[in-house]
Amino acid sequence: MELDFEGVAQRVSTGLLPGWDAVEEHVAAAHSRNRSAGSGEVADYIPILAEADPELFGVCVAEVDGAVHSAGDADVEFSIQSISKAFVYALVCEEFGHEVVRDRVGVNNTGLAFNSVVALELNEGHPMNPMVNAGAIATTALMPGRTADDRWAAVITGLSRFAGRPLELDDVVYRSETATNHRNRAIAGLLESYGRIDVDPLEIVDVYTRQCALLVTARDLAVMGATLADGGVNPVTGEQVVSAEVCRDTLAVMASTGLYERSGEWLFEIGLPGKSGVAGGIVTIAPGKAGIGVFSPRLDSAGNSVRGQRATAYLSRALGLNVF
Amino acid sequence: MELDFEGVAQRVSTGLLPGWDAVEEHVAAAHSRNRSAGSGEVADYIPILAEADPELFGVCVAEVDGAVHSAGDADVEFSIQSISKAFVYALVCEEFGHEVVRDRVGVNNTGLAFNSVVALELNEGHPMNPMVNAGAIATTALMPGRTADDRWAAVITGLSRFAGRPLELDDVVYRSETATNHRNRAIAGLLESYGRIDVDPLEIVDVYTRQCALLVTARDLAVMGATLADGGVNPVTGEQVVSAEVCRDTLAVMASTGLYERSGEWLFEIGLPGKSGVAGGIVTIAPGKAGIGVFSPRLDSAGNSVRGQRATAYLSRALGLNVF
Amino acid sequence: MELDFEGVAQRVSTGLLPGWDAVEEHVAAAHSRNRSAGSGEVADYIPILAEADPELFGVCVAEVDGAVHSAGDADVEFSIQSISKAFVYALVCEEFGHEVVRDRVGVNNTGLAFNSVVALELNEGHPMNPMVNAGAIATTALMPGRTADDRWAAVITGLSRFAGRPLELDDVVYRSETATNHRNRAIAGLLESYGRIDVDPLEIVDVYTRQCALLVTARDLAVMGATLADGGVNPVTGEQVVSAEVCRDTLAVMASTGLYERSGEWLFEIGLPGKSGVAGGIVTIAPGKAGIGVFSPRLDSAGNSVRGQRATAYLSRALGLNVF
Amino acid sequence: MELDFEGVAQRVSTGLLPGWDAVEEHVAAAHSRNRSAGSGEVADYIPILAEADPELFGVCVAEVDGAVHSAGDADVEFSIQSISKAFVYALVCEEFGHEVVRDRVGVNNTGLAFNSVVALELNEGHPMNPMVNAGAIATTALMPGRTADDRWAAVITGLSRFAGRPLELDDVVYRSETATNHRNRAIAGLLESYGRIDVDPLEIVDVYTRQCALLVTARDLAVMGATLADGGVNPVTGEQVVSAEVCRDTLAVMASTGLYERSGEWLFEIGLPGKSGVAGGIVTIAPGKAGIGVFSPRLDSAGNSVRGQRATAYLSRALGLNVF
Repeated sequence: MELDFEGVAQRVSTGLLPGWDAVEEHVAAAHSRNRSAGSGEVADYIPILAEADPELFGVCVAEVDGAVHSAGDADVEFSIQSISKAFVYALVCEEFGHEVVRDRVGVNNTGLAFNSVVALELNEGHPMNPMVNAGAIATTALMPGRTADDRWAAVITGLSRFAGRPLELDDVVYRSETATNHRNRAIAGLLESYGRIDVDPLEIVDVYTRQCALLVTARDLAVMGATLADGGVNPVTGEQVVSAEVCRDTLAVMASTGLYERSGEWLFEIGLPGKSGVAGGIVTIAPGKAGIGVFSPRLDSAGNSVRGQRATAYLSRALGLNVF
Repeated sequence: MELDFEGVAQRVSTGLLPGWDAVEEHVAAAHSRNRSAGSGEVADYIPILAEADPELFGVCVAEVDGAVHSAGDADVEFSIQSISKAFVYALVCEEFGHEVVRDRVGVNNTGLAFNSVVALELNEGHPMNPMVNAGAIATTALMPGRTADDRWAAVITGLSRFAGRPLELDDVVYRSETATNHRNRAIAGLLESYGRIDVDPLEIVDVYTRQCALLVTARDLAVMGATLADGGVNPVTGEQVVSAEVCRDTLAVMASTGLYERSGEWLFEIGLPGKSGVAGGIVTIAPGKAGIGVFSPRLDSAGNSVRGQRATAYLSRALGLNVF
Repeated sequence: MELDFEGVAQRVSTGLLPGWDAVEEHVAAAHSRNRSAGSGEVADYIPILAEADPELFGVCVAEVDGAVHSAGDADVEFSIQSISKAFVYALVCEEFGHEVVRDRVGVNNTGLAFNSVVALELNEGHPMNPMVNAGAIATTALMPGRTADDRWAAVITGLSRFAGRPLELDDVVYRSETATNHRNRAIAGLLESYGRIDVDPLEIVDVYTRQCALLVTARDLAVMGATLADGGVNPVTGEQVVSAEVCRDTLAVMASTGLYERSGEWLFEIGLPGKSGVAGGIVTIAPGKAGIGVFSPRLDSAGNSVRGQRATAYLSRALGLNVF
Repeated sequence: MELDFEGVAQRVSTGLLPGWDAVEEHVAAAHSRNRSAGSGEVADYIPILAEADPELFGVCVAEVDGAVHSAGDADVEFSIQSISKAFVYALVCEEFGHEVVRDRVGVNNTGLAFNSVVALELNEGHPMNPMVNAGAIATTALMPGRTADDRWAAVITGLSRFAGRPLELDDVVYRSETATNHRNRAIAGLLESYGRIDVDPLEIVDVYTRQCALLVTARDLAVMGATLADGGVNPVTGEQVVSAEVCRDTLAVMASTGLYERSGEWLFEIGLPGKSGVAGGIVTIAPGKAGIGVFSPRLDSAGNSVRGQRATAYLSRALGLNVF
């Protein structure tokens, strides 16, 4: 991670955010300080993502009291991609509870890449955690429903409740990914061969692919994150989406495994649970305080948004969010 | 982890601990609820450890304001073992700073056992993080000093400052471990063969073995943890042992990697940075609030104290310490 | 391997087999010495295989001059299973030549199990050798033909030429395996995701599954092996099935990788290229001299026929076949 | 492997070599065809090896009847390096027999590099085979003797009997390697930590380092190989060095594992057991016929002599040696 903290003192973390004006100002600064950070490349592993405008950059903070602060392209839509893993995980925890999900999906870091099959074989097919692809597919396979359509309906409904508005599928991204997701189909096949999923592997990869193609904005991510920060209550709509315990479980897993084999590095630099997606979004949660949503398509070599990481790191320091 | 939360509500985490009396009462309860938990075996991989009294059990909480609450055998000495890794790491961070230590020692979880050489080979000898043996040895090798004796003096002085009293070596444990630590010597040899340490591998393993044989009590661990919770200031002696930034870095690494391949599980159950040792000690840190020290020699299959985990989990819930 | 050489001197290997009568006698002895060896279990990983009669036991030697010697149940049919890999490999070598197949399929041992995906990931999807499932599927994918049916026709025709008679599919085995071969479908999916096969993964697994379900006898295996021993000329029909160079290439690969992670052990005990199948067949080749076919359904823990190995080891010694 | 077979027909393998004149002529051709092959680099991982004259090139064939044919620098001395592994293995097999050595040292390919510790960890410290460094060190540790000096005496005496003349230590190479063999010391330490060797790890690495620094010529290698080809009788001195069974065992292991993770490739191209050393030597055995010794310091990326491989491949074809 290439970060920039020049002149940014680490604010001491307390139970409270600084006042409305200070947050507003820091969100603007997080955007303006980093908007010309030019390094990184737009993802090209899925053809359609390569067409994104590399200069887009949005920053948003949603406080648990419902205040929303944004700067730049915070209302531009992009596909949620892997960020969806964290929220579908929360929905499954709500359904099955702490123990069942811990045992079936796992909570430990593999130390390996997000799409590795080595970890699967070494652990007799156990998916290990919900943030690697194997675990994310196993998690989506636990979503309630008799059919693939039922599961998809549960995913889109659940994620929309986190965002506080009806999310929609980007059909072009969905079809582009469907044409190229051989690896995920193979991973699902392995899960089936180890008896780790009870549903058809091709059907569940299809639901998972749709889940990744849902359109969100930086503002949506901030609100979704704020819902996890707020004990499961969406601070904009007031709806209780998941329980407080599910939030704790989800945040703990994001802290351990949210950035794959670089999760330790993220916690070392930012000190908060987060999850990134290959379209350039990152969600970060300051428990009890706020959610942060950022979006910018240029990615570093690990697949994380360059400007997004810089803006998040700035906000963690300037707003005193680091939990350690 | 086999835990017991019957009748224990999760207190909401705020910036403050409950009052003195409430903490005192919960420490007593953490002890009394778990003192007859009989499962687990005393470590036998080092001959001398097998002779420990399996029924010993001490619990201690040290608040950042200097208040100390203890129950049971909180003043019985035992060897610190792997818990020393976290505090030597803090001393090295203080000496070299955030970037150097991140790059030389690493901060990411390997997903593998504490004494694995697979991770070393797959990462060209990079030790990956300071909590696995390879990284701990590489960390001790960074301690200031021209000779092994200099480094040992720096270790014992530094750890004593964290504890607020002069710690002493258990010579019997040191000699018992020296006779059996072939694996650590091999790991140090690999680090040397990859050019990852600049000092003699046998000498540095000797310092590391002495470091692990330092005698502490559950009370010492609580104070050492409270020093990390308190921005580096020992709440009993008032001494600034390390900087606030070093505390954040150390806690972040403990959260990611403190319990090896079960680090995610620990965060999922306890929600706090911690580190355990094979003699039965565990230190846990509630940032800004307190340090928890526990000691009980019966270990589960992962090498963590059975009663110690149960007591810590109880305190995390009853005192509202989970950071998520 | 549990073998029995009591009273069997190692005959010195020369360019010639002992005379007709001696071979006839040794084949009878290979059968009678081992027919009551009772250890081992019939394969049960594919439901239908578990129904085989465990007492079946056939031994056959086919000399390169066309003489055929058999004992016991040498004419009982069973599914060829993994033994097919060696012969389909020879057909593909005949089609594409030494270099292309070496580069695309590989010739080196992985040191891992036949269905491992670890080796695939560590080698960027390279299948490594034609005897592990990944390499066998990649090899079948190279069989000439525009469609799956074309490739299947090429497989059945080619293997029938090796056997010197039209082989037929065991439809029950084929359907039983189709219902349970999730793992092979996942492996083929991985090969596709790495761009290592150009054909539909499900279609090619279907051809591969049919290939494994071809019915052969111990006598067929002996004749198929004798064809490889004889520079590619079937000694019974006189047909040149593949070239002499293809035979050398195929035998070299069988010697290195024919028994997966136990290939070294096989060469150490038997000293000849061989290939076993999970239905209880083993083919072994004494270059320039003969092919050996054995069949007996009881398998050891590595999946190799117990009586089959014992009979082959006896023949290697008694007939002086060890090439070293 | 980059080879050159233009105009070289594969002679059919029979029990006999072509006549004296033909062998003489082919040895000269193996040298003259390849003496200007300029690719490859002299080893530099041990400082002293980097000083070798890159243009040196010797070829030698020793027939089992005692005839010796040589061309080029066949009498120039160089250090035997890893080639020693095969002959020390034969000596240990002679001492302990087939089963003991198979069980303690192993015979299967790891699929990994010669100095890998991954295989050791995955196999609970089992060295797997005598040709990787772990297995070679474990083999040298089995050499008879109460002290390191006894073992060294047994090594130098045994290898001299294979060569038919007293071999001597290159003291400069020995000291150069001693200064840089951290990795081997670490491997020996791991073997000790797993309880796989009964002797001091540093002492046995010292014996192993001396063993690798013995001086031989291409002619020596040819005679040593011919001894293995000849059922253990040195064809020049007439001495029975090891038994015929030990030769078969040694050749089988060389065929499976002699060139590490490229063993399959070697068998695919050459069709004979062989072993190479990093100083540029290669020994190859045509069972019952001859030993081939080659020497040329330029190595390919796998550490094998470029001209040596080309000359050996030529001789395998021109003399009809491929066993398959």
